[in-house]
Amino acid sequence: MDESRLIERMRALEAFGRNAAGGIDRVAFSEANIEALDWVAGHLGAAGFQVGIDLAGNLIARKAGRDASLPPLMFGSHIDSVPGGGNFDGQVGSMAALEAATRLAEAGHRTRHPLEVAIFSNEEGGKTGSRILAGEFLPFERDVQTASGYTIGDGLRRLGGDPDRLADARREPGSIAAFLELHVEQGAVMETDGIDIGVVEGIVGIVRWNVAVEGMTNHAGTTPMDRRRDAMVGAARFIDMVHRTARGMPGRQVATVGRLAAEPGVPNVIPGRAVLSLEIRDLSMEGIERVFEAVRGRSERIARDTSVTFAFQRFYTSRAAPTDPRIRNLVEASARDLGLVSRRMPSGAGHDAQSIALLAPVGMIFVPSIGGISHAPDERTEDSDIVNGANVLLRTLLALDERGLAGN
Amino acid sequence: MDESRLIERMRALEAFGRNAAGGIDRVAFSEANIEALDWVAGHLGAAGFQVGIDLAGNLIARKAGRDASLPPLMFGSHIDSVPGGGNFDGQVGSMAALEAATRLAEAGHRTRHPLEVAIFSNEEGGKTGSRILAGEFLPFERDVQTASGYTIGDGLRRLGGDPDRLADARREPGSIAAFLELHVEQGAVMETDGIDIGVVEGIVGIVRWNVAVEGMTNHAGTTPMDRRRDAMVGAARFIDMVHRTARGMPGRQVATVGRLAAEPGVPNVIPGRAVLSLEIRDLSMEGIERVFEAVRGRSERIARDTSVTFAFQRFYTSRAAPTDPRIRNLVEASARDLGLVSRRMPSGAGHDAQSIALLAPVGMIFVPSIGGISHAPDERTEDSDIVNGANVLLRTLLALDERGLAGN
Repeated sequence: MDESRLIERMRALEAFGRNAAGGIDRVAFSEANIEALDWVAGHLGAAGFQVGIDLAGNLIARKAGRDASLPPLMFGSHIDSVPGGGNFDGQVGSMAALEAATRLAEAGHRTRHPLEVAIFSNEEGGKTGSRILAGEFLPFERDVQTASGYTIGDGLRRLGGDPDRLADARREPGSIAAFLELHVEQGAVMETDGIDIGVVEGIVGIVRWNVAVEGMTNHAGTTPMDRRRDAMVGAARFIDMVHRTARGMPGRQVATVGRLAAEPGVPNVIPGRAVLSLEIRDLSMEGIERVFEAVRGRSERIARDTSVTFAFQRFYTSRAAPTDPRIRNLVEASARDLGLVSRRMPSGAGHDAQSIALLAPVGMIFVPSIGGISHAPDERTEDSDIVNGANVLLRTLLALDERGLAGN
Repeated sequence: MDESRLIERMRALEAFGRNAAGGIDRVAFSEANIEALDWVAGHLGAAGFQVGIDLAGNLIARKAGRDASLPPLMFGSHIDSVPGGGNFDGQVGSMAALEAATRLAEAGHRTRHPLEVAIFSNEEGGKTGSRILAGEFLPFERDVQTASGYTIGDGLRRLGGDPDRLADARREPGSIAAFLELHVEQGAVMETDGIDIGVVEGIVGIVRWNVAVEGMTNHAGTTPMDRRRDAMVGAARFIDMVHRTARGMPGRQVATVGRLAAEPGVPNVIPGRAVLSLEIRDLSMEGIERVFEAVRGRSERIARDTSVTFAFQRFYTSRAAPTDPRIRNLVEASARDLGLVSRRMPSGAGHDAQSIALLAPVGMIFVPSIGGISHAPDERTEDSDIVNGANVLLRTLLALDERGLAGN
């Protein structure tokens, strides 16, 4: 690995879409996105890869292996950003994949498996490219307007894809030997606890509910405290209970109430109704259900005590995507061999690896985000951590290539 | 008392501003308000009162007493409504005052004190008429737009007042012997507990605060439960604590959180900030301060436990207005003499008596509101309760006239 080159390319990539705040505006399908993809393609071509844009707008760079009967090893990430984003989300994994590809070429190392470097399209706008490969993309999404000003369909055309042939863009389950993605944590756990490498156990599933709390609207002056059916008080006890429940159960599930609207919502009226959001995330969908059942069960006591009712409406589900346990072991061993401190952890955020997990065994490697800041110009990861992550990526890739998954 | 006439006049008054929902649109300064005042004035004139509109737009009907050296006894209420209001708020007290005046005239009873029946202007829009008499009206209020479409200044002119001479409209403290107001409870305590007559101990004071809860905005997926500074959780514990504190302290204080806004307010972000309203009401301002100090003290523990901060900004104060203890005794004795069940209770809502309390000893009499419904077409009070209230009003008025306040 050429550490200086990796860091130089990180800096060079920042030029595509740089904004005045020191962050990046490289939303999918923008000019900056297209120019950055061309720049990456140039470097991958120079490393002897055959570079193309697939029907889903993904940049795919291929190199044959020694054994033509083996399916390819895929690795990569994304280079599109949110509007006003930072310089590390997606970019660390993309530049590390480019460095691994370049290094193997320089060393004249010919892998057993074919290699595929993937820079997925429109990750920030809904993991479009990776979801098309997995057959998860829905027809209506082509008409969705994106931050670039183009619809996803028009945007895919701008990249070189074809929104009218997305069925042909799908990959068959089993057609990829394994997929590896390096990414920044987007949380503060690793930095706080002094962890170099996160061995990602999976991308958490997410379920969201609207919770309607019904009491009785009443005059805040003429209704004594013991005769109220205050939906705000019911909601408040519910929110506290959700926090304590998720915190008290074994496991690393998280539960959040991020939104609450009480009606009528004025200082001098006891709210008769409150609607709040409940989100639960866990590495397993069963874990999410366990937390939800505990929350629902405990809400009955609150309903009795405060004379309100609770009604739950599920409105969003994103399935959990565990990483392959054998790849976790390889990532962990690679970190150990390099003298790095690693920890197994869930990914609380979504990633392209989540889509590819429907097709192939996947592994993910995390490096620390300073202060946990993400999707903002202040997003940052130390150069040394980027280098560590790239080294673990390359070492894991070589272990996968040489030993495959069978030996683990 | 002519009970049938009282109830007939209640029904007749409903014609002025009746709406399709069976409620009333008789907002201050509207045509319906002016026509209803003319109708009341006609009846008071027929009962031998000298009727006029004062500079503050109040209908004032005067009749001399036997002793010209005594200040007048004042009694009355208001006949304006909220938009889409009901047929009892203000109207029960106004029609009972009219019946008492009529009955005294029929009986040829000449009181010692001069009498003044008052129908105050724009009670629902801010107790305009009674607050002008007390010198509490602020110049800017003349330009406030009202539900009638007119500003308060223009509205006062429409009634026959003069918004440019409001200083001349003030009454001197001590210039009124006493003021009595009958009103519907606007709460459900009396109906629920089988009380005929509420002996009002005073109109509660009200203080409102904005409470800002500051935590730290964070990713709802990547931030473990034990590393959150969740402003929503801090706010939730605060709301529950406010309810328990107001309920647990001795006294009849009430505390309400009616409004809460969390930021950014989306399901997948831990709120870094929440702003909520806190309202405390009590018969004494000291009682309000006691509750607030308890709430503020207990918030410190919540701040520590949830890693948030609380900041309090007081933005509204309405002073408590106790009724005169001697008049309370007279109201109570009148109810007892009539065989009615009475109870001493606070008024949680504001009333004109609150303004007049700055000038004179005041008394208030409550009758039950069915289901506590108020400011809505479903607002209702039983005919028998209206009759009971009017009887207590007349009896208390005569006792005040004959014995004065000194003897109690």
